Amino acid sequence: MKNYHLTAGPSELYFTVEQHIQQALKENIAVVSHRSAAFQDMFGFTVSQVKEMLGVPADFHVVFTGSATEVWERLAQNCITKKSAHFVNGSFSERFHAFAEAWGMETQKIEKPLGEGFNLNEVDIDKDVDFIAITQNETSTGVQFPVEDIYSLRKEHPNAIIAIDAVSSVPYLNIDFNQIDSLFFSVQKGMGLPAGLGVWIFNEKCVDRAKEIKATGRHLGGYHDIFTLLKNASKNMTPATPNALGLYTLGKVSEDLIRRDMDIVRSETDYKAALLYGAVNAHKDLDYAVKEERVRSKTVIVIDVKEGRSAKDLMTYLSDKGLIVSSGYGANKATQIRIANFPTHSKELYFQLVDLIEAW
Amino acid sequence: MKNYHLTAGPSELYFTVEQHIQQALKENIAVVSHRSAAFQDMFGFTVSQVKEMLGVPADFHVVFTGSATEVWERLAQNCITKKSAHFVNGSFSERFHAFAEAWGMETQKIEKPLGEGFNLNEVDIDKDVDFIAITQNETSTGVQFPVEDIYSLRKEHPNAIIAIDAVSSVPYLNIDFNQIDSLFFSVQKGMGLPAGLGVWIFNEKCVDRAKEIKATGRHLGGYHDIFTLLKNASKNMTPATPNALGLYTLGKVSEDLIRRDMDIVRSETDYKAALLYGAVNAHKDLDYAVKEERVRSKTVIVIDVKEGRSAKDLMTYLSDKGLIVSSGYGANKATQIRIANFPTHSKELYFQLVDLIEAW
Repeated sequence: MKNYHLTAGPSELYFTVEQHIQQALKENIAVVSHRSAAFQDMFGFTVSQVKEMLGVPADFHVVFTGSATEVWERLAQNCITKKSAHFVNGSFSERFHAFAEAWGMETQKIEKPLGEGFNLNEVDIDKDVDFIAITQNETSTGVQFPVEDIYSLRKEHPNAIIAIDAVSSVPYLNIDFNQIDSLFFSVQKGMGLPAGLGVWIFNEKCVDRAKEIKATGRHLGGYHDIFTLLKNASKNMTPATPNALGLYTLGKVSEDLIRRDMDIVRSETDYKAALLYGAVNAHKDLDYAVKEERVRSKTVIVIDVKEGRSAKDLMTYLSDKGLIVSSGYGANKATQIRIANFPTHSKELYFQLVDLIEAW
Repeated sequence: MKNYHLTAGPSELYFTVEQHIQQALKENIAVVSHRSAAFQDMFGFTVSQVKEMLGVPADFHVVFTGSATEVWERLAQNCITKKSAHFVNGSFSERFHAFAEAWGMETQKIEKPLGEGFNLNEVDIDKDVDFIAITQNETSTGVQFPVEDIYSLRKEHPNAIIAIDAVSSVPYLNIDFNQIDSLFFSVQKGMGLPAGLGVWIFNEKCVDRAKEIKATGRHLGGYHDIFTLLKNASKNMTPATPNALGLYTLGKVSEDLIRRDMDIVRSETDYKAALLYGAVNAHKDLDYAVKEERVRSKTVIVIDVKEGRSAKDLMTYLSDKGLIVSSGYGANKATQIRIANFPTHSKELYFQLVDLIEAW
């Protein structure tokens, strides 16, 4: 029996990944110099595909790090002048906040309990905030931050840098980049790739901000400050020898998704989410972990297991049938399960999942 | 015709890599959670194999970064209290020095022209130096730093942290870890693996040093400071979702080399180096780039092309026969070529290379 990973961390690989890796080995992608024209062509192709897939405007920059976690550090070092506001309602938004504090920034923490989203009418961002951090999809709780709310924040705070953690919503997320300044993700979730690569997208405003900060004498970091990353990326290169296999497969899977059509990829995600949430709603022992529909994630589906039944039993039951899902995160480990809804998870797989959940 | 990369950057993959990647994909190495027991087992195996391969004592720690370049930054942040001494005779030792300066350290730069090694009788390390950086094998020039000289420095400077950049000498390098405090490398050179992973080995003295520095209030970096790396490694984990495919193949290729026997791996390297240097010596238009035998690298062989012949022609001649070598680095691009001598480069490949060079 083959196991399918519907996990919200690393997840099932996109079905074309194995073939792309084999092709990469044939083409010596991991062997040629990262200062060669062959590498530059590959880097340029990957950037072009990522931009097309996500609708990134031509004047935005795309650079690569070791992880999305690294991007938190790079943003704190390079793009927060003095004070950042953080919407915190889960472990990952909390961690970005902790990074900003560790790098000596003043912070405003706008907090909600786990499982809840934000109501902008209740939020008052401090006037001296120069950076706003938004986790568009909290992998730990399955709460999303609607793009309309991001656009409202943009209008109210035109000068602040707005940075979007889209780790578990790319490539589903359909966002107007002209209303944000930076977005980042890692490749092992929605893209279905082996981990080991963070993707950091940002506009010229972020670069200008870093210049201003640097002019004050602050050290913005070493080999991966925004200038070094950018100087190399402008030549289709990286500062250090990179995970070239990861870069190559990212470009190829992005191309696959573009060919499939991003509208279809997104509507399939909606369809599978509706299917699974419907089964949760109909089940007497299950409930939505995120009660408010407006902020309920389509890509990380978190389910409450009611008292009397056990989340662990549900996980074991599914894994006995070959479907591996994630446990609840942190404090919710005993009472929740989390199920990824990424492009690699087919409708057929979701039919099977829903049948099993109904029968539980 | 198959091309063979004898390049000194990324190089030909070790011949078992493709099969290990296929096995990794079968075993879901890139899919399972980096917080799972399966991941922990894999991480533990890789650390054990790296330690056995290089003779690392049990009380040393092994952690992983995105690149060896990243380790320069981590050492500067975590292990240099105030002043570091750097032996600089090429681009990579120069860059480590630049990192220390950028992080606000005082530095002593002990410099030699490209192609020359150090004579410790001429070197006087400042009394207030607390950290000594040694590039054991300069990839840019093919100059090595003999281990006996490292042991002499240890005796004279028992309190300084001695950190060894072994990027292009692992796994050939046979060093007594009890006479150093830290060693680091990346996997795309001597190990013959796809790039995207740095390996940082250090002892408890480095951890104590970081504790002392932290106590002064200095921020040692974020997600990859020595404490966060260590706390995770002690559970066979990483702070962020890592390049799990890279970790797995590193463990497997280390195991392959141990099975082959490290003494044999090293003596084959010596044999191939002798063969190639012999051909260089016998050729009227070629010369050793490193004149002093004592510091002439066995793993990165740099050849001067005498006036009247062209290094570029030699590279093209070899590449027409399927053998890809590196150009000279930086200022030496027009007059030198660099040839890697790693475990993946077989004796048969070297016979062919030497025949071609003799006939040029």
